[in-house]
Amino acid sequence: MKKQLLAVSTLLAISSFASAKVQFSDENGTLGAPVNYSQYQSVLKASELQISDAEGKKGNKEYFALDGDFTGIVNPYFFVDKSSEALVFKMKNDHLRNELRVHKNFRTDLPNKFYKLSSEVQLVDPEASMKNSTGAANEITFLQVHNKGLDNEGTHNVPHPLLRVVWKQDANGVKGHYWAIVKNNAIICKGKFGEKNKDKPFCHKDNAYTQYDLGKAPLDKTTAFDITVGNKMMQIDVNGKTMVNHDIDYWRHLLSYFKAGVYNQFKDGMSEAHFYKLDYTATESK
Amino acid sequence: MKKQLLAVSTLLAISSFASAKVQFSDENGTLGAPVNYSQYQSVLKASELQISDAEGKKGNKEYFALDGDFTGIVNPYFFVDKSSEALVFKMKNDHLRNELRVHKNFRTDLPNKFYKLSSEVQLVDPEASMKNSTGAANEITFLQVHNKGLDNEGTHNVPHPLLRVVWKQDANGVKGHYWAIVKNNAIICKGKFGEKNKDKPFCHKDNAYTQYDLGKAPLDKTTAFDITVGNKMMQIDVNGKTMVNHDIDYWRHLLSYFKAGVYNQFKDGMSEAHFYKLDYTATESK
Repeated sequence: MKKQLLAVSTLLAISSFASAKVQFSDENGTLGAPVNYSQYQSVLKASELQISDAEGKKGNKEYFALDGDFTGIVNPYFFVDKSSEALVFKMKNDHLRNELRVHKNFRTDLPNKFYKLSSEVQLVDPEASMKNSTGAANEITFLQVHNKGLDNEGTHNVPHPLLRVVWKQDANGVKGHYWAIVKNNAIICKGKFGEKNKDKPFCHKDNAYTQYDLGKAPLDKTTAFDITVGNKMMQIDVNGKTMVNHDIDYWRHLLSYFKAGVYNQFKDGMSEAHFYKLDYTATESK
Repeated sequence: MKKQLLAVSTLLAISSFASAKVQFSDENGTLGAPVNYSQYQSVLKASELQISDAEGKKGNKEYFALDGDFTGIVNPYFFVDKSSEALVFKMKNDHLRNELRVHKNFRTDLPNKFYKLSSEVQLVDPEASMKNSTGAANEITFLQVHNKGLDNEGTHNVPHPLLRVVWKQDANGVKGHYWAIVKNNAIICKGKFGEKNKDKPFCHKDNAYTQYDLGKAPLDKTTAFDITVGNKMMQIDVNGKTMVNHDIDYWRHLLSYFKAGVYNQFKDGMSEAHFYKLDYTATESK
């Protein structure tokens, strides 16, 4: 019995070691460590890092700073640019990611509780990022609202984000705009739990999602995105102007959370987002 | 192609005919037809009948009066007693039922909408009903709140009732009481969609349900049960006294509905419930 247990632990150790392919280094001090920049300490303390091995398989993901301690978490994909002090997120290849996951799973339906992610973002030459991409839809997601499920354990999670804020190369001829892609219901439309639903009208892309055009993305300067969720509404302000005010009553049972960084939906390239501001706040009104 | 279609319709017709085993008759006028009694017309018009073939297999169920028209719907299991004018529900055997399903699928979370099922019920000698039963738990469910799911199509339905009002022969030595059995969360704990949950603490019977003792069931007279659902609360008044006031915030995404009649959880016997009042009302406050 003891021998079996030993064998199992050894296997686990090997498997854990084998999967931890993301390495950290400030490259001889050329890269700023995000934890050292006071303007990012608040959001880092409230978050963890979910980052892919850029050389790994499609969809691979590793988790770091689970306790919000980002000491030593810096590498050529996740760092602060020493001259601009931008918080930089880079990632190679399709379905790979490099994102802060804010820990708080919040209710979206309470009349007096509001959760906000404020950012100023510049995408670095996204056209170049996807110039070799052969994908049908070339886009970079850089802000998200996801759901954890009914509870903090993730029970009955819905595997679709409530919100993706994306840069799209070409949306039916509209080129280089930012978009807010909002899931319109809480219905599971894929996988084992979506089998009965996936062919029904409410799972058709046009019904399941509303796509808000947030305007042409200026690539020579930052754009401010403020996402506020609460009182069954999701509001998105772009450069201080409210562009989205979406009733999310249908999301009222799900605990939600924010993500910020880069998630690639294109092939054979490198995404790069520079955040000059990233703040998470929870407020209570009366 | 036409031939194939014809073959399919023929199959459907046969299968539909084969399954309709419940027959209706007023037995030469000895049984009152519920539709002819003004005191029950309101709830009948708002409901359908879900009734088992008493000679059929465990769990069998047929649907009648889908449009609320109960003309001709009378038989020895579902009728009005001509002398007492009680609306009588009877059914034989385990996991068989005879219930009105109120059509309205209602939200339970709106602050100003309330849905109420008012009843005066007498169970006829339930001890005799189950004197030959070999089941571990002998009970008759006669009032229920179920959920349809996220929408009227039944998407992501939770296969557990929010409320069952039951007569229990013996609940850990407490004999012959009425009980309200309330589901404490919206988690699926059985079947394909409950596989990941069913062994977790929140699916354990003691956590998943709260059992409220509604008192010794007097079998020589009726008991008034008023179930009111709204503003994220479920209230049960027994003979005008509030016995349950249960916070159902966790049920806020689900459309719910009422059922009344008999559902048997015992073996080899006949249940019989006499309703002297049965009213469904929806009210808006303010």
